[in-house]
Amino acid sequence: MKILVLHGPNLNLLGEREPQVYGRVSLETINEKLRKLADELQVELAIFQSNHEGALIDRIHQARGVEQGILINPAAYTHTSVALRDALAAVALPVVEVHLTNIHARESFRHQSLTAPVAAGLICGFGADSYLWGLRALVKLIRGENKDES
Amino acid sequence: MKILVLHGPNLNLLGEREPQVYGRVSLETINEKLRKLADELQVELAIFQSNHEGALIDRIHQARGVEQGILINPAAYTHTSVALRDALAAVALPVVEVHLTNIHARESFRHQSLTAPVAAGLICGFGADSYLWGLRALVKLIRGENKDES
Amino acid sequence: MKILVLHGPNLNLLGEREPQVYGRVSLETINEKLRKLADELQVELAIFQSNHEGALIDRIHQARGVEQGILINPAAYTHTSVALRDALAAVALPVVEVHLTNIHARESFRHQSLTAPVAAGLICGFGADSYLWGLRALVKLIRGENKDES
Amino acid sequence: MKILVLHGPNLNLLGEREPQVYGRVSLETINEKLRKLADELQVELAIFQSNHEGALIDRIHQARGVEQGILINPAAYTHTSVALRDALAAVALPVVEVHLTNIHARESFRHQSLTAPVAAGLICGFGADSYLWGLRALVKLIRGENKDES
Amino acid sequence: MKILVLHGPNLNLLGEREPQVYGRVSLETINEKLRKLADELQVELAIFQSNHEGALIDRIHQARGVEQGILINPAAYTHTSVALRDALAAVALPVVEVHLTNIHARESFRHQSLTAPVAAGLICGFGADSYLWGLRALVKLIRGENKDES
Amino acid sequence: MKILVLHGPNLNLLGEREPQVYGRVSLETINEKLRKLADELQVELAIFQSNHEGALIDRIHQARGVEQGILINPAAYTHTSVALRDALAAVALPVVEVHLTNIHARESFRHQSLTAPVAAGLICGFGADSYLWGLRALVKLIRGENKDES
Amino acid sequence: MKILVLHGPNLNLLGEREPQVYGRVSLETINEKLRKLADELQVELAIFQSNHEGALIDRIHQARGVEQGILINPAAYTHTSVALRDALAAVALPVVEVHLTNIHARESFRHQSLTAPVAAGLICGFGADSYLWGLRALVKLIRGENKDES
Amino acid sequence: MKILVLHGPNLNLLGEREPQVYGRVSLETINEKLRKLADELQVELAIFQSNHEGALIDRIHQARGVEQGILINPAAYTHTSVALRDALAAVALPVVEVHLTNIHARESFRHQSLTAPVAAGLICGFGADSYLWGLRALVKLIRGENKDES
Amino acid sequence: MKILVLHGPNLNLLGEREPQVYGRVSLETINEKLRKLADELQVELAIFQSNHEGALIDRIHQARGVEQGILINPAAYTHTSVALRDALAAVALPVVEVHLTNIHARESFRHQSLTAPVAAGLICGFGADSYLWGLRALVKLIRGENKDES
Amino acid sequence: MKILVLHGPNLNLLGEREPQVYGRVSLETINEKLRKLADELQVELAIFQSNHEGALIDRIHQARGVEQGILINPAAYTHTSVALRDALAAVALPVVEVHLTNIHARESFRHQSLTAPVAAGLICGFGADSYLWGLRALVKLIRGENKDES
Amino acid sequence: MKILVLHGPNLNLLGEREPQVYGRVSLETINEKLRKLADELQVELAIFQSNHEGALIDRIHQARGVEQGILINPAAYTHTSVALRDALAAVALPVVEVHLTNIHARESFRHQSLTAPVAAGLICGFGADSYLWGLRALVKLIRGENKDES
Amino acid sequence: MKILVLHGPNLNLLGEREPQVYGRVSLETINEKLRKLADELQVELAIFQSNHEGALIDRIHQARGVEQGILINPAAYTHTSVALRDALAAVALPVVEVHLTNIHARESFRHQSLTAPVAAGLICGFGADSYLWGLRALVKLIRGENKDES
Repeated sequence: MKILVLHGPNLNLLGEREPQVYGRVSLETINEKLRKLADELQVELAIFQSNHEGALIDRIHQARGVEQGILINPAAYTHTSVALRDALAAVALPVVEVHLTNIHARESFRHQSLTAPVAAGLICGFGADSYLWGLRALVKLIRGENKDES
Repeated sequence: MKILVLHGPNLNLLGEREPQVYGRVSLETINEKLRKLADELQVELAIFQSNHEGALIDRIHQARGVEQGILINPAAYTHTSVALRDALAAVALPVVEVHLTNIHARESFRHQSLTAPVAAGLICGFGADSYLWGLRALVKLIRGENKDES
Repeated sequence: MKILVLHGPNLNLLGEREPQVYGRVSLETINEKLRKLADELQVELAIFQSNHEGALIDRIHQARGVEQGILINPAAYTHTSVALRDALAAVALPVVEVHLTNIHARESFRHQSLTAPVAAGLICGFGADSYLWGLRALVKLIRGENKDES
Repeated sequence: MKILVLHGPNLNLLGEREPQVYGRVSLETINEKLRKLADELQVELAIFQSNHEGALIDRIHQARGVEQGILINPAAYTHTSVALRDALAAVALPVVEVHLTNIHARESFRHQSLTAPVAAGLICGFGADSYLWGLRALVKLIRGENKDES
Repeated sequence: MKILVLHGPNLNLLGEREPQVYGRVSLETINEKLRKLADELQVELAIFQSNHEGALIDRIHQARGVEQGILINPAAYTHTSVALRDALAAVALPVVEVHLTNIHARESFRHQSLTAPVAAGLICGFGADSYLWGLRALVKLIRGENKDES
Repeated sequence: MKILVLHGPNLNLLGEREPQVYGRVSLETINEKLRKLADELQVELAIFQSNHEGALIDRIHQARGVEQGILINPAAYTHTSVALRDALAAVALPVVEVHLTNIHARESFRHQSLTAPVAAGLICGFGADSYLWGLRALVKLIRGENKDES
Repeated sequence: MKILVLHGPNLNLLGEREPQVYGRVSLETINEKLRKLADELQVELAIFQSNHEGALIDRIHQARGVEQGILINPAAYTHTSVALRDALAAVALPVVEVHLTNIHARESFRHQSLTAPVAAGLICGFGADSYLWGLRALVKLIRGENKDES
Repeated sequence: MKILVLHGPNLNLLGEREPQVYGRVSLETINEKLRKLADELQVELAIFQSNHEGALIDRIHQARGVEQGILINPAAYTHTSVALRDALAAVALPVVEVHLTNIHARESFRHQSLTAPVAAGLICGFGADSYLWGLRALVKLIRGENKDES
Repeated sequence: MKILVLHGPNLNLLGEREPQVYGRVSLETINEKLRKLADELQVELAIFQSNHEGALIDRIHQARGVEQGILINPAAYTHTSVALRDALAAVALPVVEVHLTNIHARESFRHQSLTAPVAAGLICGFGADSYLWGLRALVKLIRGENKDES
Repeated sequence: MKILVLHGPNLNLLGEREPQVYGRVSLETINEKLRKLADELQVELAIFQSNHEGALIDRIHQARGVEQGILINPAAYTHTSVALRDALAAVALPVVEVHLTNIHARESFRHQSLTAPVAAGLICGFGADSYLWGLRALVKLIRGENKDES
Repeated sequence: MKILVLHGPNLNLLGEREPQVYGRVSLETINEKLRKLADELQVELAIFQSNHEGALIDRIHQARGVEQGILINPAAYTHTSVALRDALAAVALPVVEVHLTNIHARESFRHQSLTAPVAAGLICGFGADSYLWGLRALVKLIRGENKDES
Repeated sequence: MKILVLHGPNLNLLGEREPQVYGRVSLETINEKLRKLADELQVELAIFQSNHEGALIDRIHQARGVEQGILINPAAYTHTSVALRDALAAVALPVVEVHLTNIHARESFRHQSLTAPVAAGLICGFGADSYLWGLRALVKLIRGENKDES
């Protein structure tokens, strides 16, 4: 099983960018944690970061026929990008949306998500762990392990 | 370590209530899963369900000095109860908010959460698993395991 | 056939409370009229009044497998309770919503109803008679007498 | 006693128009039911349907000194016609507003009624029966039978 | 003369709850101050705190024929409870609304009060003293001492 | 200790202006009551009324180094004057805002106060007494008597 | 010079309709006053009343090449009819809008006028006199007597 | 195949009405172009213009069983008529909505269309050609020529 | 009979200020026309212009017991001054509001009037003539000549 | 004559992406249809698709001096991109906006178009045919064939 | 060349007022800097500060024929004064608006400016330097030095 | 000292794009003026223009450790890009925002700036000079020359 991990705009600066808001863990550290967990879960990861809305959309399109699910932190595009939402809806793969911070506890323009309605679920507020719970949730979703329960 | 698990209004009907929306797992099944996970994580659980806003507030107050964190699915009170929010803020314990369904993909009055701004994080959309990821996240938060990272 | 009649908050004061708005008939008189009509319609009534949102929800839950329909005047909770709405939706019984006064002719915050979208229909503005037409409508609905027509 | 029954725009198509929304009963069938009930209640009916806002207003004006009350389903004009509201207020007769469907459970632009604030009460959601309960309620209102109670 | 003093949700935690917002005085200390002032003013107090909206409503109903006025801090229910407002209006006793903090200087959802429109007046921002000025104001109101002036 | 008492626009007409709304007490009578209470509290009052927004701001500025607190009824400027708010914030003295009427029970444009967020507290609805409780509260605030409690 | 006088919906009931709001003068009396003033001003009047939006539009169209100006009281259509506004704009004649009552002092939905932006001016609140000042203003406008001044 | 062409209010003045907005082509010229195109497409046209909302609704009703599709320029009723929308939905024929001008580039109250949601598509901004493209599109739609593609 | 004529801010520049909007007549010319008309109507005028909100309020207060009515063009204060509105309501004299331009045809923030709800009527859009019709209307109102009609 | 055809984000997935919404025709098929029609109309096409807002803007800039008109389906950027709107306005070429689906019949955030106000016209709801009518309309617009009519 | 420098309400307290927001430079220091720069630019300054909206308007009027441009910091009146805006528009001189603080980074009611739309440009956020850049910009504007460029 | 100058979307067309709005100066001319001023101020410039939101974000990231401040004209992205705002906040360098035109005097959707709250200040409306004042302001800010004053 292959999973696409997408990091949205400005996440490449993680660890240096407003550490009082986003914490001191770098994106590379998060990626390592994800890869380690992927090994444990026996899935392969493709990880991609871009500050370009279009590049994120292009990469989502390439996931068709290649990856089986998408773990995405759309960052600032969460709140403004209908195009990203349409791309996620278009490829029709299971999606889990994650955020480092609790978006409901920040500026009001960050309370609404344009992408969440086309995701299966959302995890926010746990720093790097948001990604880890998200990966676990996504893999379980794809494997259909919680089908009989829901 | 002791954790308070709170289930809000109508969750006692889980499994029987609108299964096309909330799934077929009963609340008892969720509680068993939680207890099993608690054993694994070596924490004790106190589980409480009520349809009464006031009873939920009373129980949150009793957590002071007894439990070290709160895992809550405020259900319908998520969207209408300032009193529940104030209670969570008053006891000043770490809180993780969970929902069975993806609240951002439902009626617009379910998109905003009055309680989330006083929680550490939010997990929604994974059925019974939302509780399980939530318990793991809460325990890790209390143990300070992700402090050095964030 | 058994019908649950629910009276929401402050209705216990009926006849004494703001009679220029709500009329001079007491809740007991309304209940007697309802019981008399129930005899005529050959149905049994269970009548319950509470000022507690949670108690109303509990009672709705108990209706499952016991009563076949719910006649409810949610009073002030009409405009604020998502939890009551969810309870009515959860038990999946036919519901008729009634109000003594014409809620559209009062303060604007009383114009919208959170509970009406999960009811079959709504009757308001006819004082005690709102309940009586409501009971007749509910019984007919359950007996399926207007199925062939609608 | 004479009662004016008014059917608003598109109701002439009843039974054929979007039967999944409005049911399969024709307007003629509803009128027959109303006439039969009128006989039972010993009142005379004048029934008028029009797709023209102005024609409905003209007919309301003619009711002065002729009919003693108005039973109206303003249909789509419910939500857009200040002129119809003013006409009902102008003739100062008791008015009961009815709708076949539960307007609170449909598109949000159908949740508010411009005409309801000048009506005594409103009944919606019971198909043809909305009219029948409405006629009973109106006649009782005019006969003053619920005066001593309200 | 008897006065009902009502404390809304979470006020039982006073002194311990978010002291930087609500101060360090406990509810018991406030009650003692109120009782001392009541002695001075020669009135009797009945004091009641609850986190339950329904319990507050029940207690307001019991005030009829027993107490002559109500001093209330509705706390979080100030902003969400139409039912509490209706209860206060129903018993038709003079009401004074008080708040420990200046609600106009906090989150915007605390700027509006659903209960204030049915109160005689409102005092906020003076900590425990809000209650004391409120009791004085209420007693004077009931004794009609400011009638000739207003 | 010196206190500045500020009366906003149209208050000079008090007693004659819309007595059904504002009562029959003249501004001079209120001032006398205030002076009498000031004697009792052993503080000096400077009283100033103006219909001019700019004159009120000028007078607030002059309070710096002269008076130790401001008791203000901003009247109509409550709802429209950012400049008055800025003046009160600029002089950084304790402020108590008072209103003769309950502003929450009047037209909706009177429900919000631009000045209250920079005041310590607000008292409204008690006619002339609003000023008297306000003066007491302000003096106590300046003397720091409720510091140990809050 | 010929002037078209248009009376909108429900104005045919004038004098009988809600006299506490609209006064006791009948439309015929207003028309007589208008005709008398027209004689004095040496203009001809064509007077038309209709409850039909379409009939009012038709009549406006017929004014092209026949009348030189339009005096209109659009009544309820003031607030809802884009079609009437477009008709007035289409014929490109000078228009004066009048109302018997002060529309700014009534329900908020009567505060805005869809037709006024295509009129030269508006007169409201003077009962029958609104029409008379309106006719004078319109005639002066057409005769260009205030051109040199404005 | 028969097509109903409907022209809404004020379109009878086309060519003379605000030519800087609507162009100089008369409605008759548009109708001729439509008839010519109809010949080419081998369909029959029934063309109807009215300024009366009700007359347009009546004509739509008559289309049932007679015409196979509706080409409509609802003009000003686009923005205000729920009744017209309901009529189009009621007859359940394919509908194409056209406008001479680009409604998105005009006053903001012309940006939303109440009728478009029940149409198959919308063409605006091309003057008389909007009708011609619209007719072609409608005929193709009815003939099912683009079914295999969509 | 004495009438107070009030000109609001910037009207002293009339004739020179944005003549394409406000015309070329100077305020002095308008005042002369008003005085001439006053002679004809046998009333005395007191004319006052100020750019100061407070000065306008002061002058309105002085009208009590001196003038019998107020003709006011509040200019920009129309849209922002609650204080002016309160002053007009306080003196309880008949008020007619006038504007040189049609305020409904300008920027949207000029469409609403805070002062109009306390005026008897409003005349706008006729340049200097707005004042003249306004004076006539006010005098007639005070003389009670249209009392028997309204 | 040269025409630029622009396809916005996610349109490269056409035929595979949500076929129940967007149909089963691929973008290549649409492009072929467009090229065939271009031959018939004797114009040259330059076709460009991108998921990058910036790449679309760059391409629009390159059209200056090269192409004579732009046929654009801005897809999701329709609703969020001021930059795309500014680019279209900047190059000052005739623009026709097209959409496969009827944007007025979808989610409310798709009802408004930021780009349409700078286009000549808009065609939506006809699947691939929206492009074909749009190309015809654009070519006719550039050739000035409908100039004499509009 | 003569320039009018206008300082709005509360700016006389500069340096002492909320220094954490507005800095520690006094208004006199700013004025000296402005005078020194004026010498360098060879222009004359007239400097005026007032807390009175009317006084600011009066001074703007006096600028006609005397000064050639206005440099204004409207302070709190920026957000509430239509009268100040009208005064600036009335004298038709070039205007530059300045603010010490970045108004877009403060409370949301400070984000919009009623006066900016009638100014040539706006400079905010640079403390005393906002005035200096503003004076340079204004002088250059009047001298037409950037005409050939813009 | 090194400064990054960023030009947002469509600014590469400057001089040719809507010259009636943006003036006739080309971007190259602005850049030359900036370079000349940079020499005078003894700072180095890095100038970058892109129509790609992502490219602008990438370039902002590269400024870390290289440039000491950012002068940005975000153009259309000013009003829609949360990602650009986050990028500016992330690198934590002093930022000055400039616009050629007065954004407060254009369409209402251009009145708010998402990026300005993370800038030190904003200059708009002076054409090419906005950049020049902005560069001066930024350099002074970085050199801390106005620190002792603010």
